[in-house]
Amino acid sequence: MTKLKRIWLFREGNAKMRDELGGKGANLAEMNNIGLPVPAGFTITTMTCNEYTDLGGKMPVGLMDEVKVALADVEKAMSKKLGDPTQPLLVSVRSGAKFSMPGMMDTVLNLGLNDVVAEALIKMTGNPRFVYDSYRRFLMMLSDVAFATEKNKLAKHDFEHIFYELKTKLGAKNDMDVSADGLKELVGLYKAHIAKELGREFPQDVYEQLQIAIEAVFKSWNNERAKVYRRKEKIADSLGTAVTVQTMVFGNMGDDCGTGVAFTRDPAVGTKQVFGEYLMNAQGEDVVAGVRTPMPISDLATENPAIYKEFTDICTKLENHYKDVQDIEFTIEHNKLFILQCRSGKRSGAAAVKIAVDMVHEGLIDKNTAITRITAEQLDQCLHPVIKPGTKYDVIAKGLPAGPGAATGIAVFDATKAAELGKGGKGQHVILVRADTSPDDLKGMLASEGVLTERGGMTSHAALVARGFGIPTVAGCSTIKVDDKKRQFTIGDKTIREGDPISLNGALGEVIDGTVAVVDPELTGEFGELMTWSDEVRRLHVRANADTPADVALAVKFGAEGVGLCRTEHMFFASDRRPIVQAMIMAETDDERQVELDKLLVFQRKDFVEMFTALAGRPATIRLIDPPLHEFLPNLEDLIEEVAIAKANGKVDADKEIMLAKVRSMHEVNPMMGLRGCRLSIVFPQIVEMQTRAVLEGAIEASKSGVTALPEIMIPLVGHVNELKWIREKLDAFATEIVKKSGSKIDYKFGTMIEIPRAALTADKIAEHSEFFSFGTNDLTQMTFGFSRDDSDRFLKPYVEQKILPGDPFESIDQDGVGQLMEMAIAKGRSVKPELKIGICGEHGGEANSIAYCHKIGLDYVSCSPYRVPIARLAAAQANLAASERDK
Amino acid sequence: MTKLKRIWLFREGNAKMRDELGGKGANLAEMNNIGLPVPAGFTITTMTCNEYTDLGGKMPVGLMDEVKVALADVEKAMSKKLGDPTQPLLVSVRSGAKFSMPGMMDTVLNLGLNDVVAEALIKMTGNPRFVYDSYRRFLMMLSDVAFATEKNKLAKHDFEHIFYELKTKLGAKNDMDVSADGLKELVGLYKAHIAKELGREFPQDVYEQLQIAIEAVFKSWNNERAKVYRRKEKIADSLGTAVTVQTMVFGNMGDDCGTGVAFTRDPAVGTKQVFGEYLMNAQGEDVVAGVRTPMPISDLATENPAIYKEFTDICTKLENHYKDVQDIEFTIEHNKLFILQCRSGKRSGAAAVKIAVDMVHEGLIDKNTAITRITAEQLDQCLHPVIKPGTKYDVIAKGLPAGPGAATGIAVFDATKAAELGKGGKGQHVILVRADTSPDDLKGMLASEGVLTERGGMTSHAALVARGFGIPTVAGCSTIKVDDKKRQFTIGDKTIREGDPISLNGALGEVIDGTVAVVDPELTGEFGELMTWSDEVRRLHVRANADTPADVALAVKFGAEGVGLCRTEHMFFASDRRPIVQAMIMAETDDERQVELDKLLVFQRKDFVEMFTALAGRPATIRLIDPPLHEFLPNLEDLIEEVAIAKANGKVDADKEIMLAKVRSMHEVNPMMGLRGCRLSIVFPQIVEMQTRAVLEGAIEASKSGVTALPEIMIPLVGHVNELKWIREKLDAFATEIVKKSGSKIDYKFGTMIEIPRAALTADKIAEHSEFFSFGTNDLTQMTFGFSRDDSDRFLKPYVEQKILPGDPFESIDQDGVGQLMEMAIAKGRSVKPELKIGICGEHGGEANSIAYCHKIGLDYVSCSPYRVPIARLAAAQANLAASERDK
Repeated sequence: MTKLKRIWLFREGNAKMRDELGGKGANLAEMNNIGLPVPAGFTITTMTCNEYTDLGGKMPVGLMDEVKVALADVEKAMSKKLGDPTQPLLVSVRSGAKFSMPGMMDTVLNLGLNDVVAEALIKMTGNPRFVYDSYRRFLMMLSDVAFATEKNKLAKHDFEHIFYELKTKLGAKNDMDVSADGLKELVGLYKAHIAKELGREFPQDVYEQLQIAIEAVFKSWNNERAKVYRRKEKIADSLGTAVTVQTMVFGNMGDDCGTGVAFTRDPAVGTKQVFGEYLMNAQGEDVVAGVRTPMPISDLATENPAIYKEFTDICTKLENHYKDVQDIEFTIEHNKLFILQCRSGKRSGAAAVKIAVDMVHEGLIDKNTAITRITAEQLDQCLHPVIKPGTKYDVIAKGLPAGPGAATGIAVFDATKAAELGKGGKGQHVILVRADTSPDDLKGMLASEGVLTERGGMTSHAALVARGFGIPTVAGCSTIKVDDKKRQFTIGDKTIREGDPISLNGALGEVIDGTVAVVDPELTGEFGELMTWSDEVRRLHVRANADTPADVALAVKFGAEGVGLCRTEHMFFASDRRPIVQAMIMAETDDERQVELDKLLVFQRKDFVEMFTALAGRPATIRLIDPPLHEFLPNLEDLIEEVAIAKANGKVDADKEIMLAKVRSMHEVNPMMGLRGCRLSIVFPQIVEMQTRAVLEGAIEASKSGVTALPEIMIPLVGHVNELKWIREKLDAFATEIVKKSGSKIDYKFGTMIEIPRAALTADKIAEHSEFFSFGTNDLTQMTFGFSRDDSDRFLKPYVEQKILPGDPFESIDQDGVGQLMEMAIAKGRSVKPELKIGICGEHGGEANSIAYCHKIGLDYVSCSPYRVPIARLAAAQANLAASERDK
Repeated sequence: MTKLKRIWLFREGNAKMRDELGGKGANLAEMNNIGLPVPAGFTITTMTCNEYTDLGGKMPVGLMDEVKVALADVEKAMSKKLGDPTQPLLVSVRSGAKFSMPGMMDTVLNLGLNDVVAEALIKMTGNPRFVYDSYRRFLMMLSDVAFATEKNKLAKHDFEHIFYELKTKLGAKNDMDVSADGLKELVGLYKAHIAKELGREFPQDVYEQLQIAIEAVFKSWNNERAKVYRRKEKIADSLGTAVTVQTMVFGNMGDDCGTGVAFTRDPAVGTKQVFGEYLMNAQGEDVVAGVRTPMPISDLATENPAIYKEFTDICTKLENHYKDVQDIEFTIEHNKLFILQCRSGKRSGAAAVKIAVDMVHEGLIDKNTAITRITAEQLDQCLHPVIKPGTKYDVIAKGLPAGPGAATGIAVFDATKAAELGKGGKGQHVILVRADTSPDDLKGMLASEGVLTERGGMTSHAALVARGFGIPTVAGCSTIKVDDKKRQFTIGDKTIREGDPISLNGALGEVIDGTVAVVDPELTGEFGELMTWSDEVRRLHVRANADTPADVALAVKFGAEGVGLCRTEHMFFASDRRPIVQAMIMAETDDERQVELDKLLVFQRKDFVEMFTALAGRPATIRLIDPPLHEFLPNLEDLIEEVAIAKANGKVDADKEIMLAKVRSMHEVNPMMGLRGCRLSIVFPQIVEMQTRAVLEGAIEASKSGVTALPEIMIPLVGHVNELKWIREKLDAFATEIVKKSGSKIDYKFGTMIEIPRAALTADKIAEHSEFFSFGTNDLTQMTFGFSRDDSDRFLKPYVEQKILPGDPFESIDQDGVGQLMEMAIAKGRSVKPELKIGICGEHGGEANSIAYCHKIGLDYVSCSPYRVPIARLAAAQANLAASERDK
């Protein structure tokens, strides 16, 4: 095995070495190389951290010798020496992984201070207060990162307590009120505390200090909070952290010193203008501690025009170099500017879009780069109302970010009341709060500004509706306890009653006390431009899942090229239709059933006329009824309770008893795998005959007003080709007759969902009777894993936390399992029909990784909820760009 | 296209031509060729029937000319002529498909009779009564088969009514009391009725008669009852029926005439002795009508020794020729014996086994032939009590034959009472009658002689328990209505109350009024011999699904080579354990839970010691807990009702309310796909740790008494390799420690079920962490189809009836879909571990077609309920023989 180079001086590295040097180390090397004023230093590689871990937490042999060699180079560059009694060098020791993990790992500043060096520094600076302040900080910091894991009392907290006691004794209010002598006393107290707790003196040997700090950083890669963060951000544990040792520069050595942080553009809105804050005579910590209020960076232009110009020139240089917004830390030491760190600046969705588009116009990047710069989450932020930038608010609970967007209104505890007070009712702003939601709540949800639930995951009913209708929603917020009867919810001691104002930040899953200002999204301008570029680049088509004419209009506004899934049964839930649906189910004869179906036909046909009109020539995939019929009836458990209570009270409610008997007779142990989809159509063909009639008569009527209607009738839940064959033959004959009778020409198709594993396995046979396939990846995921989406929270959460699964397969397609079935279905289907149109209409159709996968395996289109359409357009473009990149 | 030969004279055909000539035609040809006295005739091929059907029910051009040519040959052989006024020939026209469909299609006898021929026959025979009797029968029969489909009044019933009125007028009690003149009058009345209803005279043209009859037989292939029968027996609709036209011989022309039916051996018990009945001066119909009681065939030895000897010689000749028991129809016409039909004789299970084994000893067939002769159903009959052969009984309802065997006892309507009165209680014979059964009923089921349910299919809980424990069971008997509260069930007007005696014939799904005599099976003798032969031939090993020491003992008795599935949770249902299990579930802390688990450990360890001891060195695959925990708690709906009633009555039942809250919190929408199997083990590892300890400590204890214990611990419901890896690592470490501590050597394995589609798709990854696979085809079928076994009755029945599915995939493996996943899993698994042991433990492991498939795809063993073990041994042997046959 050849020995790897463990240490890289800044001048030896570059920005591409993130794997070895971490983001911070690589950028410092890069900045050094492009001539920026970076304090000298070097970086120990991430592999060395892994070596350390693999050795069970022991320093690799020879490492410290290599450190000393590198250090000598730095000492030469800075004309100072670590531990030198006349020209002492102080260094920082920082972590830096490949991917940013802010605040997760350890940092030591001012390393190299000891009693001798302190004296030397006082002589050098004539500023004893600064020296003792630095020393006491160093003592605390090194103890905290290196010794506190073993000795609890060596953690930061105890040191702060000692300082607090001293301040009390001295009558000082703030740290700033303590004199140099006071801080000198504090250094003594700290050293005594360390000696007592550690059982030995604080190391005066600066090389020992350095080794301790390096080891502490290595160890911090595997501390609990870093591991949790990596799990959350899906960063591999095997990467390790680099350690950067860099010359300290001080912003707190006097009034010609200072420190600051700035972005090269405004990260909130994207304006091209340096944006940030600074403080003179301060260290970075002071800014964070909030003891002093930092000044806006623009003030520096007045206070120190030369430095300001130098800094803004550097900003321009960095942007031109990195072709992206930079987040820069700087320090001014005796009027000399040092750049300590630069990294790609985090930005809001709106800023991301504006910056990417602006940079194209500035000639800094090309359109394709602009497209790849925007994440799905950033784009999503642009599609929903957001809390007005800069607003401070009080988060009282956090749940799952089930539906993005911000909402504000009064809490309401049942759907009926929400419908009465909210949109379409009295027009108040309401937030519907439920333990969980069911299809019964739909009307109330649609009338609300936002929805909050105590239970349910990212794919619960509430979450599905939220994303489908763009309702800001926080789901599965288990810290709240909803009490329907008292009409309130509690979080610990806090109680929110009906009528109390609350707000939600759906993008972050935040529940907020009181009202916040909310601003609406802007879909034109830079956003529109970016979308146009994406459309030019993508190969995948994008359709929307839309069940009502209003949804369809919204989808078209968001750029959908058609409807990929219209769930016809959603048309049954409206309050004017549901009683008819129930009567249809309760019917005892086919004739009675037909009477009700004829009534529904009128509604459904009208819906389709409006949908085809809104689509204006775009195709619409219309799925025939899918859910089990008992979903339209009252809840079994409620009925049992109501009937039991009535009986115990000596009353008889005949209607309810009949309903109970019916609901009992239709009850299923596993409704997901019961009498639904095409099974229902085979057992009760009348319903789908009505639906087929409604679709075709709707198309015929729309076409009479000059609209090209392109219905694609989709038969769900097919597992065996004979199911499809049976229904298709029946409906095809029926359809031919309707169209023939009308004298119109309607180009309609019949196809099927691939959502049962067996359908994928036998897709060649199924393709013979199908003009298109649409992957129903929600159900396909359920069946392939044997996971009930309604029940899987209890084990999916621990699964993801313990990395048994890489992620929730209901969010992003499981490519190894579900994907294997999809690829099989595509290959088999197209082996029979090379031109078979294949799309996806599961929730995955709006998720970026899944869209990339759909592109890769050759789907024709993805379909997702209207609010996800722009995201899908962008993701489809990104997928095609990534594929071209790979093919190069 | 070359023209196919449509008509085959008997002398032209042979027994191998079943496809073309049907079973009957082929056998008549064969019998003719081996020199038996067969009345001359010919057969029209099955293809001709298809031709007729394809022409939309029109006679193919030229067919009647070909018929006439063949007829001329027959006429020549018999020296008679159809329609001839002096030597008239009469013929029968019969259906005959490739597979026997007794009574399903039409037959016309005495064809060729008309007014002229009748006169001629009277002259020939001097027996006008016989002639008019034959004529009136022919009139009725031809009308019934040819005209009644159009004219309802030309069906048999109306003719019988006319005869009834004539008998009344003549004062005759029976048909036999009506004189020749009376029958002549009847012929006139029949002709008048036909002329009136048909609008024309009954055809006197004998060729027209012949064509009408041939067409009627063709048409009868597609009559409703034939279609239903074929669906049930899985006979393809495309086969068609042959039509055999054969010279009539008469057993009713005088006292030197007669007719009979006989088997070459006793079909009920298998004794080598001609067995049958005959009647002198009678036609076959008379035997069926039951007007006269037929005589045992042995009486013929006295009545007509020559004919008897000729007949028994023919029997021997036929058995030697066909090497199987024959079912023979014969007629004696004026002391001349004619053989009209012979076919393989249907026989009881016991007879089938005895006959096959006897024939080997007689040198008639070899052992392999004997093995292939026995069907799974026949063998099954041998394993269960049967109704004493020859017993007459009153079937009042029919359900599904869910558990074979006969049972008799008093009806009892709840499990508690069954347990109290039945086996292990007061020792009465009880039949448990339930709307459906749940795990709660297990104890009561085990105490009962038999179980009858109103609902549930072949794979319902009741059916699974039935087969698992060998309890005669009739399930899904939807004609009965069970009323728990009144403690009775009704069938139409009939009511069976608690305590009333009823009986079940599980093999046929029969519910019987009153008590019947039941005899026990005999597993030695010929049965034992056949099993030994099977074991010599088969490659597949056979294990049993057994959950208790008693089951294991039974399985070993039935020849199991090990346990393929021990469902450890079944050990939790016993009444002394269930409260502990419930307390374990209700526990609020891990420590509380452990206290209960420690109690269960004692029980479970003792069970394993006994199981390993009973297995005496055979391996045992032990599945860790699989069902969701809520299965061990009371039913949610019952609790809701009870708590609601208590509350309405102003009472508080705190325990019940706590239980309700717990059950509600654990409630799952789709429990089949919820928190169960390995998911449960990951969320609550304590339970499987206890189970692993019980298995290993049980094995250690058993091994201390000299028994070789071979535990194979099986982790259920794995869908992702990481699930298996996680649990296995945990349990492996645990197991190593237990075994190490004991100082014993235990050869234990860890493996997994393949029952989730994703597991099959990723079996290569899973095989890396598994020492064996066992296909759980029940769940694999559920997930692959998306069919809930508990709910699928409602659509699976219509699916099978309408041939959307070829059969119930829970009964026989769906080879196209589920099988595809199995083959994939085998290939992937063995690509990583060539020696991977693979078995099956789903219900399919005991079903003959599925066993043949398991043999074909290379499984190592099948596992099934103890009562299916002999069937599996036989089926495995048959599969291997069939495979060798194909390879030849």
